[in-house]
Amino acid sequence: MARKIRMGMVGGGEGSFIASIHRMAARLDDSIELVAGCFSRQHPKSIQMGQQLGLESARCYASYEQMFEAEAALPADKRIEFVSIVTPNHMHFPVAKAALLAGFNVLSDKPATTSLEQAIALQQLVQQQQLHYGLTHTYAAYPLVRQARQMIAQGKLGTVRRISVSYPQGWLADSADTQASAQASWRTDPERSGESGCFADIGTHAFHLLEYVSGLQVMEIAADLVTQVKDRLLDDDGAAMLRLTNGARATLMASQACTGLGNNLQISIYGDRASLYWQQEQPNQLWLQRRGEPQQLWTAGADCDYLDVAVRDLCRTPAGHPEGYIEAFANLYRDFALLVRNGEQLDDGLSIDAAVRGMAFIRAALLSSQNNASWVSVDPLALQKQID
Amino acid sequence: MARKIRMGMVGGGEGSFIASIHRMAARLDDSIELVAGCFSRQHPKSIQMGQQLGLESARCYASYEQMFEAEAALPADKRIEFVSIVTPNHMHFPVAKAALLAGFNVLSDKPATTSLEQAIALQQLVQQQQLHYGLTHTYAAYPLVRQARQMIAQGKLGTVRRISVSYPQGWLADSADTQASAQASWRTDPERSGESGCFADIGTHAFHLLEYVSGLQVMEIAADLVTQVKDRLLDDDGAAMLRLTNGARATLMASQACTGLGNNLQISIYGDRASLYWQQEQPNQLWLQRRGEPQQLWTAGADCDYLDVAVRDLCRTPAGHPEGYIEAFANLYRDFALLVRNGEQLDDGLSIDAAVRGMAFIRAALLSSQNNASWVSVDPLALQKQID
Amino acid sequence: MARKIRMGMVGGGEGSFIASIHRMAARLDDSIELVAGCFSRQHPKSIQMGQQLGLESARCYASYEQMFEAEAALPADKRIEFVSIVTPNHMHFPVAKAALLAGFNVLSDKPATTSLEQAIALQQLVQQQQLHYGLTHTYAAYPLVRQARQMIAQGKLGTVRRISVSYPQGWLADSADTQASAQASWRTDPERSGESGCFADIGTHAFHLLEYVSGLQVMEIAADLVTQVKDRLLDDDGAAMLRLTNGARATLMASQACTGLGNNLQISIYGDRASLYWQQEQPNQLWLQRRGEPQQLWTAGADCDYLDVAVRDLCRTPAGHPEGYIEAFANLYRDFALLVRNGEQLDDGLSIDAAVRGMAFIRAALLSSQNNASWVSVDPLALQKQID
Amino acid sequence: MARKIRMGMVGGGEGSFIASIHRMAARLDDSIELVAGCFSRQHPKSIQMGQQLGLESARCYASYEQMFEAEAALPADKRIEFVSIVTPNHMHFPVAKAALLAGFNVLSDKPATTSLEQAIALQQLVQQQQLHYGLTHTYAAYPLVRQARQMIAQGKLGTVRRISVSYPQGWLADSADTQASAQASWRTDPERSGESGCFADIGTHAFHLLEYVSGLQVMEIAADLVTQVKDRLLDDDGAAMLRLTNGARATLMASQACTGLGNNLQISIYGDRASLYWQQEQPNQLWLQRRGEPQQLWTAGADCDYLDVAVRDLCRTPAGHPEGYIEAFANLYRDFALLVRNGEQLDDGLSIDAAVRGMAFIRAALLSSQNNASWVSVDPLALQKQID
Repeated sequence: MARKIRMGMVGGGEGSFIASIHRMAARLDDSIELVAGCFSRQHPKSIQMGQQLGLESARCYASYEQMFEAEAALPADKRIEFVSIVTPNHMHFPVAKAALLAGFNVLSDKPATTSLEQAIALQQLVQQQQLHYGLTHTYAAYPLVRQARQMIAQGKLGTVRRISVSYPQGWLADSADTQASAQASWRTDPERSGESGCFADIGTHAFHLLEYVSGLQVMEIAADLVTQVKDRLLDDDGAAMLRLTNGARATLMASQACTGLGNNLQISIYGDRASLYWQQEQPNQLWLQRRGEPQQLWTAGADCDYLDVAVRDLCRTPAGHPEGYIEAFANLYRDFALLVRNGEQLDDGLSIDAAVRGMAFIRAALLSSQNNASWVSVDPLALQKQID
Repeated sequence: MARKIRMGMVGGGEGSFIASIHRMAARLDDSIELVAGCFSRQHPKSIQMGQQLGLESARCYASYEQMFEAEAALPADKRIEFVSIVTPNHMHFPVAKAALLAGFNVLSDKPATTSLEQAIALQQLVQQQQLHYGLTHTYAAYPLVRQARQMIAQGKLGTVRRISVSYPQGWLADSADTQASAQASWRTDPERSGESGCFADIGTHAFHLLEYVSGLQVMEIAADLVTQVKDRLLDDDGAAMLRLTNGARATLMASQACTGLGNNLQISIYGDRASLYWQQEQPNQLWLQRRGEPQQLWTAGADCDYLDVAVRDLCRTPAGHPEGYIEAFANLYRDFALLVRNGEQLDDGLSIDAAVRGMAFIRAALLSSQNNASWVSVDPLALQKQID
Repeated sequence: MARKIRMGMVGGGEGSFIASIHRMAARLDDSIELVAGCFSRQHPKSIQMGQQLGLESARCYASYEQMFEAEAALPADKRIEFVSIVTPNHMHFPVAKAALLAGFNVLSDKPATTSLEQAIALQQLVQQQQLHYGLTHTYAAYPLVRQARQMIAQGKLGTVRRISVSYPQGWLADSADTQASAQASWRTDPERSGESGCFADIGTHAFHLLEYVSGLQVMEIAADLVTQVKDRLLDDDGAAMLRLTNGARATLMASQACTGLGNNLQISIYGDRASLYWQQEQPNQLWLQRRGEPQQLWTAGADCDYLDVAVRDLCRTPAGHPEGYIEAFANLYRDFALLVRNGEQLDDGLSIDAAVRGMAFIRAALLSSQNNASWVSVDPLALQKQID
Repeated sequence: MARKIRMGMVGGGEGSFIASIHRMAARLDDSIELVAGCFSRQHPKSIQMGQQLGLESARCYASYEQMFEAEAALPADKRIEFVSIVTPNHMHFPVAKAALLAGFNVLSDKPATTSLEQAIALQQLVQQQQLHYGLTHTYAAYPLVRQARQMIAQGKLGTVRRISVSYPQGWLADSADTQASAQASWRTDPERSGESGCFADIGTHAFHLLEYVSGLQVMEIAADLVTQVKDRLLDDDGAAMLRLTNGARATLMASQACTGLGNNLQISIYGDRASLYWQQEQPNQLWLQRRGEPQQLWTAGADCDYLDVAVRDLCRTPAGHPEGYIEAFANLYRDFALLVRNGEQLDDGLSIDAAVRGMAFIRAALLSSQNNASWVSVDPLALQKQID
């Protein structure tokens, strides 16, 4: 392995679940080194966190603006090579924008922004700055999700006819949950989460998985969003019907009010030659259904010769040694390191274009829902014009 | 066990899958005796089939009209006590009507009729004739479906918020399937199946399961029906969003074009206190999800003391001895025999009222789909007026 | 379907679980008619039960001796054609013997006898009388068990190397269970169950499944039987290592003291080309593992073209319509009816020879266990000599 | 987080699967820093590997003897604090011995040694040197395995009656496999693997899991080891019956000749109050069976309040975010770092005492198998005397 890529992090102070996942993911394959960060707006806290992470105090900053300025002033072989953004949602855009303007590549937690307009602006900025931008759509980095995508791209399912994707969670099922944690608090706050709650937070994952695996795009959506828990200001539950580019149909459900459910993202893709099923809570299993044949259970594993070579490379262990969420995240970091170091192309599912589509999905879902679930186009430009 | 109830059958000639299931179900518990039938419009064929089933030739009829007339003329202790209808869909209504008019109780395969108008007419006739009518919604007769219903009725799920029900099948996924069997042929023929194909055939099962288990009614529906397979005249695939009486939301998917799928009816019910999951292909398992507790796997079994007494009575074996589709069907027959013999009330999920709701669902789904998935009320009377 | 075969039943009075299963199984396919029985040694009770089952009082007998005598005296076209034995274990042999001597075919619940000597005597009697004898090894009548057997016979697994079979139940896990039911009471009573408890009751099922599916025979056994529950007189738990004819090895576990378990008979067969896994509680699923390929999930179903024709004939429904324990039992009855009516050969797994092997297994397991789990041959003749 | 513990590694050159897992595990939680290593006996290769891992060349050694000498000569705040041993099995003992004698703590891949005598010698050395020794029994570091152990220790299962543990793998199922990889090659070579093949390699895992989870010890064993694949010199398959300290019984199966199987370690523990089931390939699921209650599915997750606090601390993600094999390994490294830094007690399942028991198990299994599966004590001292 060659030298480690130098990473700076924005966000991820004490108690941030997702930031600790990002850091574990960045460490796992030894291809990235955390060298700078702004972990809190309070400088002492930022320094304290940085020290815990083995950083020099001088590179623990009090603001991201200051960080980008100071790092840009460092010699090229010392300064950070990319910025990992793990703040609450509303800060993703301003931080990414500032990072790109300061000349840094960006790997951002999702969603890319809190509005479609921001996403389009970010897309333009990425193109203009000729820098790398990646969005951590974790679920698209599971080996068997990539395998599913390959199989569909290779025509193993024939024409895709219908997709069912659903994402029930239960962690916000009670009204008491709203204030029970920092994560819940900002996700249910329009100021910090944007115009949507559940659909922005996890509906986008379901939408992304659908487009990513199928290779199709959603043309229009009819959505019915709901706030199930009293006194909440944003949607915490909803469903939609979708029409896809090739005429295929889909349903999408996302909810954070499903009592007792964990993180049960799942997808069925029905084609005219075969069908597939995958479930995030059993990520090492992919079911293939073919007419007149026994069902097949495809398994992740570095030694599974029936998997695509690129998929096997995403597995660190042979079949039977379960890998999971952190490893999927680590796949994203490893790929981004390879992009930064060698210019190896990042999977397009993680690009700013996918990010724009995600924001278009949220916008279209909201518009449709406000209009009694009438059909709304998911085309980003059409949606933007509609607003202007 | 008391004496056997005398049954006459209409339909169910050579090669009818569903009729052989009905007969096995009727036999299983020894409470019913098949004594008459019209198995074919060709008298010799009807006689041949009847003889195979152990009937006297004299009671193997060439038409249902003739059968009802002849049976009605027999002494009360000899003539049939109810009619089992297992014809193709378009004959369910005329046969049921004639049977009721002739004074016979009716147990009909679903759907009750091929139009809402017929269903309403049948409903009136049932009330007027003061006879028993039952519809064989098999899936509602699985022990754990009844258990789920009980648990929801008892408030164990709290307020139901969202339901996902889907019913993917694959047996009509190819265009060649349309003519591959008698079953396929009439199901895809508007003359014999009615105004809808897939939604009438299995969408109604999904709809019924949803209303039956939840105890809620669907208020309105936005449906998007599709014909996936070329040259087919009726819908073979579709999905809908639903709004329920208590404000809960639901999605419903039904398809016969899902390559490789068997008969995978499944339902998730999410409440504010707990959630449930059940799948027809694993009918002896019911999953209960409660917040902060391990998931519970409820099992069918006559010895499962944690099940409702009425549910245990639907089990013929102790836990660990799998029962299935035929046993569920037999539960329907046994219950109908008890109704005829002792006047024991039939489960209301199998009543003519539920049948009317099923036809209202089909009608509303079609109307909505024809109108680009706009919302349509599922109220039978409102729908009827809309037509008039 | 041709005329029904006339059956007489011995045993199966009020409250007998297994007898009601036998009767449902006999009824299901309409190929058998119950016309006589001795359901209790108390004549009034026998009559009462028979009447409930629709029999003439005259053919409800007070003893099996009387029944065989009276039935034998009836005209050939009226008398019973076979006897179904559903008594407690200790009566299987005397009833079967008397039936055969009276000229009747026998279908017996297992075990065939309560000792090896009786089994050998019965084997000789069957041969001498030139009558049909069948043993209801239910689990061998599941479609996918037959499929597994076929696949192994066809060499799809290559050489079988190792088999794991286990049968944990929990219904006798407490000392209070011993007297909690009639079933428990006689199974734990040396007078009525024979020299073994658990191994005779369910160990034989595991042993039979092993030999039946693999087509191999067990050469020798080292067994360690235990009485886990205080004050019980027979084994209620045990395990064994086995060596098979081709040098393959196996382990067998059977227990009725596994708290919370249902009826979890399961078997893994490992070959040098592929492996198989089947579990009774999920009888419609058979797992095939091949090197370097996705696992395959084979499903039962009359329409599963990848199954053997003979296996499909054991399925009454298409894939996705679960069948279970009663249907497996019905397969046995249907096959026995075909044997009696048409002389169609019965599956050899249900023959008196298999019954003798089952008793040899029990005897060998007991001998081994009494001798600190030393190796004992399972050859019936060798074992018999050892005693003599 | 406090400072990182300095680690030296012996073994783990190019292509070593298990070494790369050890290094990922050591990195994951940022509590350990790899600073020195002997990755190959060829100095240039060792240096090359070390450089890839970010080490100074000066601390990439050509032999472990040289490494220990040189590191011991470094200042206390620079030299390694523990040695991670990831060599082939036959080198575990000499390296561990040399490390301990040089004053270094040791974390060793399993098995600890290749003979019982070595294990006892190592045990004495550990005690004498007052240093820390840990064995990486990965499977004992899965959160739900720890939970199972807790539940049994707390009496939730009552008295353990029977345990079934089996470990079927298929990666050595063909004779061609023997030379197909370095891993296979040394595992099947008596010179490098020791006196046993499969039982030493994975039988020990099964044995360890059994003793670890149950809290019981195996008293005696009757084992039947086999070489299934032609021309192989060591056992590649086998089974055993076990008798435990409290009178409980167990069966153990381990095989590397099970075609098509992955890494399917699984254990059932049957108690007189409840039973448990866990399977390595689904490590985030633990099944609890209680009499008269629905089965419970316990799930791993940092937010699962029903888990023991110590178990939750082993989870890095909330329920529904799968963790796996690497995370289990990382738990071992994190715990060992805490031991070295803070003296926090290591889980006793990973101690040298457990290692000695593992070697006693192998020895006893071999002795038993050589003596036609007669019973052999698993007491290390008794076994040692037997040899002397």
